[in-house]
Amino acid sequence: MAKLTPISGFPEWLPEQKLVEDAVISQVKSVYASHGFVPIETPAAELIETLSSKGVVDREIYSIRRFHAEEDAEAALALHFDLTVPFARYAAQHLNALSFPFKRYQLQKVWRGERPQKGRFREFYQFDIDTIAREDLPLCCDAEIVTVLLKAFRVMQLGPFQMLVNNRKLLHGCYSSLGLGETQRKAAITAVDKIHKIGRDGVLKELESAAAVSHDVATRIVDLTVVQASAADFAGVFQATGVKDALFDKGIEELAEVLRLVPTDLQQYIQVDLSLARGLDYYTGLIFEAQMRDHPEFGTVCSGGRYDDLASQFTSQKLPGVGGSIGLTRLLELAFSKGLLSAKIRSTAQVMVTVFSETQRQRCNEFAEELRGSGVATEVFFKASKLGKQIESAEARGVRYVAFVSEENEAIEIKDLETKQQHKFAQASETVAWLSALKIS
Amino acid sequence: MAKLTPISGFPEWLPEQKLVEDAVISQVKSVYASHGFVPIETPAAELIETLSSKGVVDREIYSIRRFHAEEDAEAALALHFDLTVPFARYAAQHLNALSFPFKRYQLQKVWRGERPQKGRFREFYQFDIDTIAREDLPLCCDAEIVTVLLKAFRVMQLGPFQMLVNNRKLLHGCYSSLGLGETQRKAAITAVDKIHKIGRDGVLKELESAAAVSHDVATRIVDLTVVQASAADFAGVFQATGVKDALFDKGIEELAEVLRLVPTDLQQYIQVDLSLARGLDYYTGLIFEAQMRDHPEFGTVCSGGRYDDLASQFTSQKLPGVGGSIGLTRLLELAFSKGLLSAKIRSTAQVMVTVFSETQRQRCNEFAEELRGSGVATEVFFKASKLGKQIESAEARGVRYVAFVSEENEAIEIKDLETKQQHKFAQASETVAWLSALKIS
Repeated sequence: MAKLTPISGFPEWLPEQKLVEDAVISQVKSVYASHGFVPIETPAAELIETLSSKGVVDREIYSIRRFHAEEDAEAALALHFDLTVPFARYAAQHLNALSFPFKRYQLQKVWRGERPQKGRFREFYQFDIDTIAREDLPLCCDAEIVTVLLKAFRVMQLGPFQMLVNNRKLLHGCYSSLGLGETQRKAAITAVDKIHKIGRDGVLKELESAAAVSHDVATRIVDLTVVQASAADFAGVFQATGVKDALFDKGIEELAEVLRLVPTDLQQYIQVDLSLARGLDYYTGLIFEAQMRDHPEFGTVCSGGRYDDLASQFTSQKLPGVGGSIGLTRLLELAFSKGLLSAKIRSTAQVMVTVFSETQRQRCNEFAEELRGSGVATEVFFKASKLGKQIESAEARGVRYVAFVSEENEAIEIKDLETKQQHKFAQASETVAWLSALKIS
Repeated sequence: MAKLTPISGFPEWLPEQKLVEDAVISQVKSVYASHGFVPIETPAAELIETLSSKGVVDREIYSIRRFHAEEDAEAALALHFDLTVPFARYAAQHLNALSFPFKRYQLQKVWRGERPQKGRFREFYQFDIDTIAREDLPLCCDAEIVTVLLKAFRVMQLGPFQMLVNNRKLLHGCYSSLGLGETQRKAAITAVDKIHKIGRDGVLKELESAAAVSHDVATRIVDLTVVQASAADFAGVFQATGVKDALFDKGIEELAEVLRLVPTDLQQYIQVDLSLARGLDYYTGLIFEAQMRDHPEFGTVCSGGRYDDLASQFTSQKLPGVGGSIGLTRLLELAFSKGLLSAKIRSTAQVMVTVFSETQRQRCNEFAEELRGSGVATEVFFKASKLGKQIESAEARGVRYVAFVSEENEAIEIKDLETKQQHKFAQASETVAWLSALKIS
């Protein structure tokens, strides 16, 4: 008999967990679509050449190969490790078929050839959203990305969350005012990005070595990382740091404009944080990270920012953009393991129709069809087993209402397995009206 | 600059096609869920051992390998080539966590390492649905699978379709009455399955060689393949063939019971067809195939049947089941290439709010939020460009309504780009009420 070993790093949910995942996906999609973002999907595989075109050779990727392929006879393929590179390739390839600004969302699995390790996923869903333009992209697009991502977190109802935001120009201006050249500033950003991992002393050390700055300058840079403020107060707080630099001021101005355009009721979820640096070279303006407030140990569950050029490796057309990515599988793993989900969905069916005898099945089927026609998902029990067994099965499957169809007349009885109450109806139509009015879902 | 070569066999849709795919997926899911089927999803990769455990070694599979993996240090993995083997593994692995009868649907991509060839997909979506039980599974479950699949085709609105059905017992009984032993009967089924590919003479030849029957018996078998009848008439028509065999009669009885339990309004889509054999060894009772009536050249777009044991290679627990699979990507390729889709969705947004000047943007955003709150997906144009350009953009993006927010008072004007009519409202709230009442989607 074949082995039943789970494959390390490839998560697999039970049906009740998959139902939750689907519900979350559908909520987030609705938010994205309500702002006019459209879906795209790219193949799981890309040319290895495409995946490594940004020089990302240190990522562990999974190559794929036809079992019966002749050696070297075909293009070398690998599974994508994120959705950004495929999106860049897609945008360049379909440039003339797309309408700009191009606002897209993309939910797909990605694969990382990580060493097998507890808690590390090798297959997981990412939920990306980006707006790209030809030539220039106004800051209102940054604000819209922040807005839809905050709305997505609010609609998922997984507990308190916050989004840390910053601006790369602000960081560059800050470091520039301390005398750092471009290469030093990049090294400083890489170092500061690690502050919550390696701590103040670790960053100090790295600044002195990798960014080649004096102990005093390194100390000043690290001191600035504690500066935090709300969306409303940040400009004043940041100006009070005493940094005098045109790029720093430009960063503040950009960030202020972005935050001004985020709806008032979402501002509470935003914290402007000078310690936020983001590792990737890529970003040129706004940067952000979201985390669950009650689970800081879980780290970042969403991140992104603005970039000047999406697809320079594929096209000479300049495509500036802004976007972010939700780590859906990690977020759900957290939600399942910490029990963050208030509502439990265990079944798609809301009603189970019991069957007293096989001669009655057709009548039960017709009643179930009436319910489905009114939007009430309904199962008919598959055997005319003892009634107790049928009710037990409904309970086990998480179906809330059980229906008993009379064998003598038109009457139907409904039992609510949650409240234990019974409701009698003289006609099927009355039952359907009553159940569909409950808006159970 | 990196190459932009599409990878042969890995289809990629434009956003407006992906919107159609998503709409179709959501319609089919609703049908499945309305009958209480629950979703599952399995990893893209399985142990190669798992995939080959049914002796399916002739299928071309894609193996996957970590770029930096030490040779032979890890379990050998491959991408799944269908959803049946992963489902069998899943059911066996989570046996005690599942509630039986287990009714599941599963929509995922599968990968086939086919030789690159025009029209052959190497990555495509399959949409599977199955009911499995521990021990016995009544025929009402077969009827439910036929019912939901027919409903799925009806809801997709891709034009006329029909489902051919047959029963393996009926075939075995028929061939048995002609003196064929079990091995011969299996060979006969394999031969008859090819009738629409290799024709009458080809099947005759194969019956004589592979099934080792006389020319007369082969002729009789081929003659029987023309027997077809509607769901209502088939029992009489089949009995009139003169076949005398208990298993044949049992097959008719089973099929009659299954068809009796399919709702009357769906019976018109069913054709009982003695030529339907299905290639796989696997099936033991009901078998079916669906095709688009106006596109017979496109072949089977959905198929399935009843099997006695799903997961014998993984567990000693007997799991009989019945199910089918829709070839979603092929179906959509057909729909796109033949223009079968009546409704065109080109955008998620229903309204685009134009912006006269940047000072007005916040007001436009607030109006858009009101619309979204009432279920109307809305974009705000990203620049205060010339009005004509903004309207052009809405047209290009497939957004039907354009809104003009007055700079002087509360008034809002809506232009319907389809009818070219303009509608004036004194207040935002009136506009929202009017647009949300249109139930545009």
